[in-house]
Order: sequence, then structure tokens, then C-alpha cells
Amino acid sequence: MRFDKVIRYGTVVTASDTFKSDVGIKEGRIAALAGALTEADEIIDATGLYVMPGGIDSHVHLDQPSGEGIVMADDFESGTRSAAIGGNSTVLTFCMQEKGQSLREALRLYHAKAEGRCHIDVSFHLVVTDPTPEVLGQELPALVADGYTSIKVFMTYDGLRLRDDEILATLDAARRTGALVMVHCENEDAIRYLIGRHEAEGQVEPRYHAATRPIAAEREATHRALSLAEIVDTPVVIVHVSNRQAMEEIRRARQRGQKIAGETCPQYLMLTSEDLDADALEGAKYVCSPPPRDKESQSACWEGIEQGVFDLFSSDHCPFRFDDPAGKLNEKGRRHFRWIPNGIPGVATRLPILFSEGVMKGRIDLNRFVAVTSTNHAKLYGLYPRKGTIAIGADADIALWDPDMQITLTNEMLRHGADYTPYEGLAVRGWPVRVMVRGTTVAKDGHLCDSRRGGSYLHRTLSSLTRNAGNGNRNRG
Amino acid sequence: MRFDKVIRYGTVVTASDTFKSDVGIKEGRIAALAGALTEADEIIDATGLYVMPGGIDSHVHLDQPSGEGIVMADDFESGTRSAAIGGNSTVLTFCMQEKGQSLREALRLYHAKAEGRCHIDVSFHLVVTDPTPEVLGQELPALVADGYTSIKVFMTYDGLRLRDDEILATLDAARRTGALVMVHCENEDAIRYLIGRHEAEGQVEPRYHAATRPIAAEREATHRALSLAEIVDTPVVIVHVSNRQAMEEIRRARQRGQKIAGETCPQYLMLTSEDLDADALEGAKYVCSPPPRDKESQSACWEGIEQGVFDLFSSDHCPFRFDDPAGKLNEKGRRHFRWIPNGIPGVATRLPILFSEGVMKGRIDLNRFVAVTSTNHAKLYGLYPRKGTIAIGADADIALWDPDMQITLTNEMLRHGADYTPYEGLAVRGWPVRVMVRGTTVAKDGHLCDSRRGGSYLHRTLSSLTRNAGNGNRNRG
Amino acid sequence: MRFDKVIRYGTVVTASDTFKSDVGIKEGRIAALAGALTEADEIIDATGLYVMPGGIDSHVHLDQPSGEGIVMADDFESGTRSAAIGGNSTVLTFCMQEKGQSLREALRLYHAKAEGRCHIDVSFHLVVTDPTPEVLGQELPALVADGYTSIKVFMTYDGLRLRDDEILATLDAARRTGALVMVHCENEDAIRYLIGRHEAEGQVEPRYHAATRPIAAEREATHRALSLAEIVDTPVVIVHVSNRQAMEEIRRARQRGQKIAGETCPQYLMLTSEDLDADALEGAKYVCSPPPRDKESQSACWEGIEQGVFDLFSSDHCPFRFDDPAGKLNEKGRRHFRWIPNGIPGVATRLPILFSEGVMKGRIDLNRFVAVTSTNHAKLYGLYPRKGTIAIGADADIALWDPDMQITLTNEMLRHGADYTPYEGLAVRGWPVRVMVRGTTVAKDGHLCDSRRGGSYLHRTLSSLTRNAGNGNRNRG
Amino acid sequence: MRFDKVIRYGTVVTASDTFKSDVGIKEGRIAALAGALTEADEIIDATGLYVMPGGIDSHVHLDQPSGEGIVMADDFESGTRSAAIGGNSTVLTFCMQEKGQSLREALRLYHAKAEGRCHIDVSFHLVVTDPTPEVLGQELPALVADGYTSIKVFMTYDGLRLRDDEILATLDAARRTGALVMVHCENEDAIRYLIGRHEAEGQVEPRYHAATRPIAAEREATHRALSLAEIVDTPVVIVHVSNRQAMEEIRRARQRGQKIAGETCPQYLMLTSEDLDADALEGAKYVCSPPPRDKESQSACWEGIEQGVFDLFSSDHCPFRFDDPAGKLNEKGRRHFRWIPNGIPGVATRLPILFSEGVMKGRIDLNRFVAVTSTNHAKLYGLYPRKGTIAIGADADIALWDPDMQITLTNEMLRHGADYTPYEGLAVRGWPVRVMVRGTTVAKDGHLCDSRRGGSYLHRTLSSLTRNAGNGNRNRG
Repeated sequence: MRFDKVIRYGTVVTASDTFKSDVGIKEGRIAALAGALTEADEIIDATGLYVMPGGIDSHVHLDQPSGEGIVMADDFESGTRSAAIGGNSTVLTFCMQEKGQSLREALRLYHAKAEGRCHIDVSFHLVVTDPTPEVLGQELPALVADGYTSIKVFMTYDGLRLRDDEILATLDAARRTGALVMVHCENEDAIRYLIGRHEAEGQVEPRYHAATRPIAAEREATHRALSLAEIVDTPVVIVHVSNRQAMEEIRRARQRGQKIAGETCPQYLMLTSEDLDADALEGAKYVCSPPPRDKESQSACWEGIEQGVFDLFSSDHCPFRFDDPAGKLNEKGRRHFRWIPNGIPGVATRLPILFSEGVMKGRIDLNRFVAVTSTNHAKLYGLYPRKGTIAIGADADIALWDPDMQITLTNEMLRHGADYTPYEGLAVRGWPVRVMVRGTTVAKDGHLCDSRRGGSYLHRTLSSLTRNAGNGNRNRG
Repeated sequence: MRFDKVIRYGTVVTASDTFKSDVGIKEGRIAALAGALTEADEIIDATGLYVMPGGIDSHVHLDQPSGEGIVMADDFESGTRSAAIGGNSTVLTFCMQEKGQSLREALRLYHAKAEGRCHIDVSFHLVVTDPTPEVLGQELPALVADGYTSIKVFMTYDGLRLRDDEILATLDAARRTGALVMVHCENEDAIRYLIGRHEAEGQVEPRYHAATRPIAAEREATHRALSLAEIVDTPVVIVHVSNRQAMEEIRRARQRGQKIAGETCPQYLMLTSEDLDADALEGAKYVCSPPPRDKESQSACWEGIEQGVFDLFSSDHCPFRFDDPAGKLNEKGRRHFRWIPNGIPGVATRLPILFSEGVMKGRIDLNRFVAVTSTNHAKLYGLYPRKGTIAIGADADIALWDPDMQITLTNEMLRHGADYTPYEGLAVRGWPVRVMVRGTTVAKDGHLCDSRRGGSYLHRTLSSLTRNAGNGNRNRG
Repeated sequence: MRFDKVIRYGTVVTASDTFKSDVGIKEGRIAALAGALTEADEIIDATGLYVMPGGIDSHVHLDQPSGEGIVMADDFESGTRSAAIGGNSTVLTFCMQEKGQSLREALRLYHAKAEGRCHIDVSFHLVVTDPTPEVLGQELPALVADGYTSIKVFMTYDGLRLRDDEILATLDAARRTGALVMVHCENEDAIRYLIGRHEAEGQVEPRYHAATRPIAAEREATHRALSLAEIVDTPVVIVHVSNRQAMEEIRRARQRGQKIAGETCPQYLMLTSEDLDADALEGAKYVCSPPPRDKESQSACWEGIEQGVFDLFSSDHCPFRFDDPAGKLNEKGRRHFRWIPNGIPGVATRLPILFSEGVMKGRIDLNRFVAVTSTNHAKLYGLYPRKGTIAIGADADIALWDPDMQITLTNEMLRHGADYTPYEGLAVRGWPVRVMVRGTTVAKDGHLCDSRRGGSYLHRTLSSLTRNAGNGNRNRG
Repeated sequence: MRFDKVIRYGTVVTASDTFKSDVGIKEGRIAALAGALTEADEIIDATGLYVMPGGIDSHVHLDQPSGEGIVMADDFESGTRSAAIGGNSTVLTFCMQEKGQSLREALRLYHAKAEGRCHIDVSFHLVVTDPTPEVLGQELPALVADGYTSIKVFMTYDGLRLRDDEILATLDAARRTGALVMVHCENEDAIRYLIGRHEAEGQVEPRYHAATRPIAAEREATHRALSLAEIVDTPVVIVHVSNRQAMEEIRRARQRGQKIAGETCPQYLMLTSEDLDADALEGAKYVCSPPPRDKESQSACWEGIEQGVFDLFSSDHCPFRFDDPAGKLNEKGRRHFRWIPNGIPGVATRLPILFSEGVMKGRIDLNRFVAVTSTNHAKLYGLYPRKGTIAIGADADIALWDPDMQITLTNEMLRHGADYTPYEGLAVRGWPVRVMVRGTTVAKDGHLCDSRRGGSYLHRTLSSLTRNAGNGNRNRG
């Protein structure tokens, strides 16, 4: 057999296995695994490296409008560039429906934003903000059939949040179509109430962002989302869980027999609300929702990754420039935390952080790393078996990791649009020295090395979670 | 590349992945996975079949003496024959130390029993019944170095049970050597007390075996074993968990941060204590410990398999003939349940039952099936990556499963030494139509097809659970 | 000392003590407890009887409009008559604010309904349905100062339900004034969704009332109410808990440190959803919200009474005539369960049922009976120490119970306005043979014996739960 | 009516009620409660004082031999003296069976120790260390009939600890006789193991007493005791619970339906293991078992008192002199913590600490104080209604508390035999200014005022917990 490319001498890692094997690539796909593949147009030496599926980051915000003149720091070009440098070969971003807008129209706009600008493969979740009977009854079934198989709903943010009856209608539509529903769980009314109380005390600095979004507000919404899903008998993904109490709600739901996926993010392992207490307005850099909590919550989130409460480890990349009137420190945001746009950059740092803090520090093994950063994303969002693994027939989306490389993170190297990273100066061990998308090397040694912007849009099949209603929580196998 | 054998057109299944691929075998090992491998001495057509790692049954009793003239129904020949027919390529059996005996001496005897009689590969767990300082301090370190890396201790059965101080000493020795400790958790004193109460009422039929070994006695011993392991800071395996309460103890221990593996068995999914209520002495067929419980316990055990509480699904094969003075209905056993030898046959039925009731009924997916029946056994007991997966370099221990084959179980087809199976007449869907051990087909279409008795003894490395103390519960990844 | 009345030879029972003592009454109050009080205008012989505080039923609906021509079966006259016959000396009923109405105006109307018609003492909870800033900020503080110290809010029923922001505002007003908030916890949107699904299947018989108000909808709202209370840092009462899952939410909240009172009712001990499955429309008799559940839920509610999860055992008396166009079987209600008015009669049967099923069957002792039927109501709703106990200075509100009397319940004997009781034919042991209000015998041997309608309206102090924010859950002492 | 004594103008407090009343005493019993009792030989003015039942301390060690020349610092004279000064009118002490000794013989010796030396009333628990068939089958039934209705067993301490089979036999005897069994729950083998490990490191200072008795060892034994009790179907008291994990075991057992009483002590509210870290050998003062834990455990114990997990608040008074060769710093104890006698003084400080830290700081109310310090002890140990309340017919065992008195604790004022108190210098608010036993004032203003040593030995009825097997946990009403 002759291959286009062969990766030699590496250690292949999947979500369950670790073994020495060469990897033969042909027409962008993995064509062979064997001990010694020698005939190829290009031989890539992976001695001492891990040959892993490229990262799939299923929670990335790119080029979304935020209103009030705020501009997201990454468009599809810079966002996918930064993702590639951080070891990813696919990102799932959000297509946000405006009120009154059809989903088709929203998709048209987002496809236009992405078209021809992506360095790696992308696909869109549909954010439903206006779940009219027409949207849910007419558009959604057709869109699911077209490969738009996941929906996101918000329980917080004025203008985005859905009422319970709207969530129920959306879950019901998901039940009928097989779409998988992601839920951002925070109780908006509770947050508004607390903002009011803190405002009345003149407490408007960034640190009060954390105080006004307490764990109880996240736990409440998490339990509510899970209860609504139970009533409609539909799986859901609880995204960006930040603490033990919300995590316990996922455990309880599973013990009731529900099919639930859980997600956490690097910020809940690495940051705490004390980061928001930084001098002056510096805390604005860490304003995201839910906010980072405390050390105990960090331990809980690690436990959740290790023990299978969380299936997904995503970035929730949502970048804004810090020192910028269109970013964190816009005119109003300087005066009151509620005008600081919520979100932090992270698409490039997600994988190195988990590799270094998780794998190299012995908290998780390599297989669990692959599961929560790639394979489970592919399975849960309908990209498997094309994406998310090193197996015959899969796309040759491959990251080569050097476990011995030591890097001190700086904002510059991440190549995103934001002017800061929350992890400036963090020392990590292990780095993705090469990232391939469908057989093409996109990033190498921390640099983009393919300017063709060859990322494709991915139409997806149904989620493993919704496809076979009878199956147990097989994603935690 | 030319291979000794090639399996063509099948669907390869690992603990995380499912993909179409041919499998090339050379010198007893898996040498290549690729789309089309054509050059081989033998081509095996696997169209429509799953190509899975052969089953590893890590909880099998063969040729152990039971005293009082009772004879175990299987020796290594018949036991491994039945295992092969049921889809297994490796079994882990027990080498039982007698009081006063050295472990080396016990090993010598068990090696003699196994030598030249095994149809598939085997390895021994060391049952420690006499944990003297010499045994723990001198013998064990040397034996672990020699590849005897797992120990079993009993909290029940007169003559086998260890006191808490002995368990602590054994765990401590395990901590120092890296041996993995399996624990049979039932409170012997509580059982003795209840036997006394029932005897006093003249309640001595087989059904009282279940009444005298209640869930509370298993839950108590489980919590105690886990607490002693916590105090010594050593991982343990809780074997043959039969009910929700014991299962919750495993969950609680993990939430305390302990590294624990959990095991359940087919009898806890398929039987209940009502089976012991059968007419006359028929109930003796189902006497095993812990006893089967009730429907709710069955649900709990399924939940544990699905959600990752259990890493291992084993048979606890412990066969005795029913209608035999050397078996269940020995002279004393006819008169009092306490003389009925404990144990049921199951090494041949474990995999078909889980495949049919689990995979085909949608409770678990194929990958979870592979994980709990093969891969996790290999990882937890130091056989990985040689065993337990379909990957380059691994032994070609392969089972081909036909998911469409429908079989009604009868005792004859199982080819074990017992004169009954608890599952007589059970209809299953899916059957292992071919089992290979290191590239040699051992069983085919329900028949042994290799009379050479070519099974090897396997020396093992340390368990994944003890090897990296710092790692989380990565076996549930 | 000379008394107006003396109760001789009885056994006095309080929430903690049981002792033989005579009871001297003077000017409507308990003036002395002693071994032998002989000088009195009237000597009441209580040989063989328990001398208990009269029942306080803090959850009674009387003379509330239900719209659509539906008429509640009891006004204040018949309702308090029935209550007296059932062993009560005080009832707390609801004053329902209409949308747009001031609380003062609502109170004016309800005082007019009650004035001069009550046989026993009464007080009103304020049902807040329109929590405007004026209502919460202006009216409520003044009303609390005037002795209207408890509020009820609904999370279900169109027109009554409050949104989360309204609940938060109400809790915040309660926090500032010390009012105690009772919450009816069911998720209205979930119920609407399920009604829609069942309607679509043509499932409109009474039995579907239960199916459309599942435990998950109650558990969800319970957790939400408790979370909102946690966020505002205000105690709440979770009323009419029907099942284990909702009960566990109360336990969890207390373990988080919240101050919570819990209530259950006879229907959750005695009825199940199968009662709604009765032939034809008979099931309408049992339509109430939350609906009765199953046997396991009954066990859970008993456990909650015994173990202190529930502080209050109330009737939730909400009577409608069955065979009446203004009642259960109104024209629309005959065709669709959603038009059957929710509620069942129970003010007369609450105490005999708990006495017979609880005390006489050994589930609770006499002291716990007094605590959950009288003392805790008085303490939690600001009537203590005037009401709720046998102690010097307290109102002589006394029920004499004959533990040996056996009664078969019939609707006639209960003297309420409904034409049925859910407990027709139930045999009970123990009966309140005499009920005194402030020293006057109101009911005797099952008959009203005082036609003066001398019940007073009770202005109340703050709840024990809100009075000392720092105190633990002392009502479970 | 004319009384021997009348307490006027005070506020009577029981486990459920608080009310102004005079108290009339006749022949050592409470004869009347009324608004104005004026005719008496002695009038005691209780203006501004609480009139409470005298404290009952059901966990007190007096005059027990400890072997090795160690002498307990209090005999019955000094112990009951100190108890009286601290507000108690009854103590329950331990009669310790020696191995081989009959219980009758042990009782003879302990009666001799107590006879004529007690300032307040006393009764003995039987410590069973040698549960032979004769002891359990012959002696115990007769002793229970004679009013010795409680037993204590140890799971720790060499020479005292019982094996599981012995505990089961003892529980079985208790089930048959109605005796109530108290259990000291710590796993002796685990402690021995840890002592061995620490010894091997040369860690023998007092602080290692805490390290070698970890929470896991207490939790394990607690769960085991509760499981054995479940299997035998017998109530037990879990004494001196020190932390949340052991407390949760009690909650779990109750949720399984078991009848369990729980006890905690002042040391678990006020001390931590850091107290054992004191300079040099000072830590020896705080050596007791279980050891004090940490701040979180203190919170848990408070929660347990408030929420009813604990029914009993006792001292576990077990006094040794500190700077004394017969006490803490005996020759061996100076060199190794395992020779420091376990126990601390506390019979005098129990009530003032709970009053000050609990009632005055708003954690519990007065009624809960009375319940956990007196009434529940009387009910659970068969002294009720003679002891434990202010009710007609009860012994006039009364403590008058001045809530405004502020005291700084010093060892001298406590009048026990130890040369230190762990609470030296602690400021408390509230003090028992007068203590009466059967109508006689024994202590007044911190001084013993009756030298007659008039305490009686109390024969007891069965526990409320064992008397009515069917009853729920009514002691938490």
C-alpha cells in the first residue's frame, strides 16, 4: 500500500487505547494503522510524540454581535487560527437567531461570516431565542434533516433567555426531531434581583459580577433544566458547569435514569472569583458566566472530569478585547460590571491546560484526555466516526503532542483577537507540535502553516445521546 | 504486507471506537488495521460481524478444593473450554493459599493443575488466607515482581475470612508492592448470627441462604473494606456487587477521592432470590454469595454498568454439579442450606447474556460492552496493552460476534462440567461465532476446534489502578 | 384557688410531655395545672381521656371564589363548624388578593365573610397574586405590624402563579418585614405542557389530572422556591408536600443551612393516584394539587412526619360539592379534568386520621401528634404562646380525646358543606369528644353545642422562623 | 393549696414550651403550676430566671479503674458535686464489667463506690466487656427487670472492644429484654495499624493521638454498629459523634427506617485537633476519643443539634489529672501518646457552654436546650416522666438559670477532681444559679449548699426507643 502521508514511530492514543503504530493517510483519511508503513509521499517522524485525534472544541463563540457597539475579538479567521495553534481540528460555533428572525436566515448570515475564512473545520449549533411554532414545527425538522442537529437555549441574559414554557416547547421539538439541546443554566431573575441589591449599595465593580451570579442561581437553573428535560423525556447537555452543586444535579438526574451530558471548561479548573477582585478594572478580564468560583469548586470540576460526570471539556471561548471601547472596558462597562461583556478567550489554551494540569500531573490518563477533548464531542454532536478518533476511515484530523515540551503561555503566541489571556505566564508541559486537518498540516510548532483557509463546514448526524433513546449513558463508557 | 491471517469486511469494536476495517494478523499479533488487506495465508470473512477483543473473565474459579468431599465441576480443561465457547480468550482464576501454606507452594500446585490443560490463556489471582508477616513481607514483593500482581481476600466464609487487622496488613503490603486487592464483602458474623436465628426456627431450606445473607451484611462489609482501603490509602476492587446499597458505597468512596474498581456479574442482572424459592431442593442451583436479590437490585446493577460505577462485568464462575453427592446436593446440603456449596456456573454465558440483554436491548453500546468485558479487565489486572483491545501489537485475541444469531441456551452447548445452567432456555440474540487466541481459532460456531490446549500462563504488570497513585479513576474514561 | 372550670382526672399532653394533671380554667385561660383542683363552677371529668391543645389547622380554604360559577362548599360558618367537630379550636384561612386589588381591600372583604360566623378562632394568611411595589413596599409592612404576618404565593394556577421575579420581590419584602412566606410548589408551565400532550391524545378524564402534575413538576418547583429563598436569605414554608423527592429538597435545603418549614396533609398519607382512576367521573372527588401519589410516597410522608422533615400536618381543606353544577362535576369539568375544581374536604378528618393511623398504630407518639397538629402551627404562625399548648396563661383551647372510641367515618358526621368525604367508611380509633375554645365547649360528642358563633379573629406576632434569623431550625426540637 | 416550696415569678421552660408560671413543690415533687402560688414554707424568687428541668448528663465516667496505676480524677462525691454546680440534678455513670466478672458482681462494686457519696441522683449503664451466654442469657434479663435498662459496648480499646459476633449477641439480648445499647464507634484495628505506622516514624507526641484515630475509623465503626443493629432489628445509641461523616451515617440509618439515637458532646463543638498540637505535652489535656476534629466538624455537630440528628448532648466526662504520675502525664504517657489516658473533664461545663454558645448566640432555642440536655435523656434512658421535665408529678429537679449572668470559666469554680479544664478562660453568658434535686437545693450561686450527699440511685424503666418497637423517632419531635 502506498499512502499520501505516513506518520511514523508515534504512539497512537484513542479514547480507550494507547499503542505504538504508524498511521497511513490517503485522500485525507486514515487508511492504515500498522507497525511499519514506509511507502508514502511524505513521512512525518513522530518519534516521542503522541498521535491523537485533533481537538474538537464544541463550545466556541465567533463573530457574534453583542449589541451596544461591543465587538467580539475573533471572527472565523482569527478564531480558527487560534484554535489550530492550540491543537484543534474542528470547532463548533454558534449561529444566533435574532428575535423575529428565521433560523434559515440566521444560518445564511453565519455561513457568510464563516465561508472561506476557516483554517479548520467548523459546524454551527443553532441558538434558539425565538421559539415560535413555525421555528420549532417547520424550520427545525428540516434543519435537523440538513445536518444542523444541535440547539442551544439560554436561561439567562435579557433578550436571549427563554421562559420555561418556551424551553419545554423547544425540548419537545428536539424530542420529535432528535436534535440535541444544550442549556446555559443560570436563573436570570435571581441575578437581576442580586444586581439590584448590590447596585443599591453602590457595589458596581467587576468583582460584583461574581457575587450577583451565585452558585445557588446556577444550581437552581440546572435542576430546572434537568427537570424540564425529564418531563419531556429528552436528553440535554448542561454546559459550562462551574461547581459541585450543579454537578451533583447532573449525577442526580442520571440516577433518575435521564440521559444527560455534562460539560466543564478550563476557567473552572484554573480561575476563582478572587481573580475578579484584581485591582481597579483588571478584574474585567475574568468576567464570564457562570463566574469562576473557589478552590473547592475547582476540585469538584476535576473530580467531575475524572469520574465521568463531565463528558465534555470545552473552552466556551468568547473573546473580547480588554483595553478597548468596543471590549471589556467600554464606556459603560468601566462604570458598572453589568455592561462588561461576558466571556473570555480560551480556544487555544484549552488543550495545553488540560494536558499539562490533567495528564502530566496524573489526574487523568491520555485516553480520558482524548475522550473529553475530542471523541465525546464527535459522538455527542453527530460527527463520529468521521471525526474524533484515530481509526480506519476517519478524517485524518490529527494532533501530534510532544509531552516533553515546556511552554510559558503568553498572549502573543495564541494568535487570537483578544489583547490578553487569563493564563498569561502559566507554565505548561506538553504542546501540540503539529495539527492536521483531513491530512493537511495546518499548524506546526505554534505557527499557522497553511494560509489556504481550507476548513469545511460540517453537516452532522444525530447525537449518540438522542439517536437511541433506549441506550444508557454510553458516552461515559 | 503479507499476513498470516486477515479478517476481512468486519466492523472492529474497541472500548471507544467502532469502524469498518480489515485486521491483519502476523505471528499471533495484530499487525495491521486497514481498509483492504488482501495478502494472507488465510482470509476470514467477517461480513456482518463485529470484530471484538476476546472476552477476559477476571473472576473464575477452577479446580479449587472445597473440602468435605465437594468437587468443583470444572478443572482447567473443561473450564477454559467452556470459556472459549462463550467468547473468551483469557480467564483469571484463583490460586488459593491454604492456612500455613506459602504462596509459592500454592502457586506450584495451581500451576500443576493448569499446565498443559488450558484452551485459552490464564493467569492467577492469589487468594491470601494466611497473611503472616512472612507471606506479606517476604513472598508477596517477590511474587509481584514475578508478575503475580493481584490478591483476593475474603470477609466471609469460615477458614477464608480475614479479620480487619489482617485485611489492613494485606492492604499495607499491597500499598508497598503495587498489588491490586480484590475483596469479597459480606459480614461473616452477621451471616452466622442470622443462620443461627433461622436454624432455631427450623428454616434450613435453600431459600434461607438468601435470607441469611441480607443486603445490609454486604453493604456493611463493602463500606468497611472501602474504609480500611481509605485508611491505608490503597486502591481495591469490590467484586460481585449485587445491589444498590453496596453500589452506593462505591460511589461514596469515589467522591471521597478513593481509587476503586467495581464489579458485577450476570446473576445480579438475571436472577432474584425468588429463584432460590424453587420447589424442593431445586433452589440449590442458585445458591451463590452474595445471593441474587430482587428486581430493584437488578435495575441498580444495570445502572451501575451503564453509568460507570462498575468497571468489570465478570462471571464469578464457580461450578458445582447439582444432582451429585459431590456437588450441590451432597448429603449434608440436602438437609441444610449451609452445606450447599456456594457458586454457579457462568463462564460461557457471561458474554452472550450481556450482549443480548445489554447491547441488543439498547442499555449499553458496543463500546461499553467491550470495556466491561475485556478492556477494563486487561487494564485493571496488568494485561494491557497485550490483551483487551484490537490495536497494533496486541495479541490477536479476537471474538467475532454475529449480532443476528439467535440462540436458546441449553446446558449441553456450554460444555462446562456442571449438569445445569441457571439460564436454561434463555433466548439470546448475538453469539461469538469464532474465538481466536493469539491468532489461532480456538472455538468456532459453538464448538471447540483446536485440541492442542495451547493456552499460556500470563505474567502480569501492575494494575492501572495502582501504577499511578496520583491518577483519577481513569478506567471509567 | 377557685376556677370557672376544671378538667379533672385527665392526662395532659403537650408537644414534649405527658402527665396526669387537673387543669384549672379561669376567664378563658389556663390558670392552673395541679394534681387535684376541686373548686370550680364546672367540673369536667376527663377520666381515661387525653387533654390536648385544640387542633390548629393552618391550611384551610373557606369561602374563596373560584370563578366560572364554581362555589366553594364551605363558608366560614360551616367550615369552622366542621373544624370544631374534628377537634380544632383555630383555623388559618386564606385571604385572596385579586389582581389589581389592594391587600387591605381584600382583607375588608374576607373579614366581612368571617365576621360573626365563626365557631372557633380564625386568622388569615394573605395570598399575594399581584405583588406590585406598592403592595409589597407600602401595604405589607403596615399589615405585618397589624398582625397579618404570613403570606402565601403560588407557583401554579393561571392567574395566581407568580413569576420568579415576583417571588423574589415577595421574599425580599418578607425578609424586610418578618412575614413568613408559604409556597405552593408546582411548575405551571410543565403542567400546561403535559395537559397539552394528553389533550392531544384525547386523555381528558379525571385520572389525567394526576398524570399531568408529576412528581418532577413538584420537585422542580420545590427546589426553585428553596433556591430563591436561599438567594434572598429568607425562611419559607413548603406546603402540602406529597412525595419523597420534594421532601428530599427540604432536607437538602436544611443541610445548606436554610430555615425551612415543611407541611404534609392527610391525602398524601391515605390516598393514591389510583383513587383518581375510579369509574367514570368518581375520580373527580380526589382531584387536588399536588395529586395523591403512590404507596412509596405515602411511606415517605410518614417518614417525614416521624423524623421531623415536616413540622406541620394540615388539611388543605378546599371543599367542593361533587354532584353539583357549581362543584366538581360542573358542565365543563364533566368533559375535561382541567375544569374540575382542585381540592378536597378534610378539616374535620385531619386529626382523627393522624391520631388513629399515627398514634394508635405506633408510628408517632402523642407528643409528636400535638407538635405537628397544634404547637408547631402556633409557633410558626405567630400564635404562640397564646395558642398551641396546655400551659399557664394560654387560651383554654382544649380537645379531650378518647383513645378508645371507635368511629366509622361518614360524610354526615363531618358537618361540612361538601356532599362527600374521601374517607367515607374509614374506621378510626380515637376521637375528640370535647373541644373547647377559650374555655367554652364548642363541640361535644361529635355535635356542635354552642350556637353563638363566638370565634374571634386572631392578630398574630411574627413567626418563630423569621423572628430570630440566627436561630437554627428550632421548630424541630 | 399549701406547698413546701414555691418558685415564683420565673419563666418555666420545657422541651416544647416557655411560659410564665409559679411552681409549687410538695414532698419533693412538682405539685402545681399556676399564675400565683403564694402559700408555701419557702418562697424562691425567680424573677428574671428560667425555671428548667435540672440537667441530666447520661454520659459520665466516675471512679472507674484504668489500669497501670492511672486513677480517675473524680469519684462519685466530687463528680456529682461538680455536676450539681454545673446545673445537673442527675448523672448516668458506667458500671464496668471486668473480664470474667458477672454483671451482678460489678454492680455490687459500683453501688459500693456510689453509696452515700452522691450529691445528686445517679444511675448506672452496664458496660458489657464479656458477653458470655450466661451474662446475656441469664443475668441481663433479670437486671433489666431490676431497672438496669441500658448497656454500653465498645468497638475500640484493647480489653474492652467486642468483636462483631459479640456485638451481635449483645444486641440480640437487648432485643429480647428491651435494654438500650450505647455504642462507642471507632475501629480498633485501624487505629492499631495507624499507631504502628506513626510509631515507625517516631511520631509519638500527643498530637498523633488525633492522627491515629481519623474520621474514617469512626465513620466505619458507626456504619458497622448501625448495620449490625439493622440486622438484629434493635435500636442503638451512637454516642459522642465528632464529625459530619459519622453523623451522616445516623441520618442514613434513619432513612432506612432504623430507630437510632445520636449523641454529641461539648468537645466536638469547642475544640479541634489543633488543641492537641499545643506545645510540649500540653496537648495531653485534650486527649480523648474520638478526638476533636476541625472547624467544619464543629459546624456539622451544631447542625446535628439544631436539626435533630442528635437527641442527646452529654459531657462524656472522663477526668484525669494533667500534671500527675497517676494522670495524663504518667511516666509512659510522657513518652508516647498511647499511654495517655483518654478523656477530659466536662460534667460542670456542658450546660453553661451549650446555653451560652447555643441559646444566647441564637443557634438553638430554650426548648431545644432542655430537650437535648435533660428531657431526651430521661425518655431515652427510662427516667421519664419522673425526671426530665417540669410537669405535675415529676421530681422537683429544677435548675434556675440566669441568662444575664456572665462568667469566665476557671478550673477552680468547677469543683471537679481534675487540675485543669479544657475551657479555662472561656467567657459564658448564662449560669445555673440554683439547682434543686427532689425539692432540695443542692447548689446555689456556684457553691454546693447541701452537704448531706442525698443523691439516690435510680432504677429505670425501658427506654422510649425500645419500648414501642413500632414508634417512629419520636424523640426528635
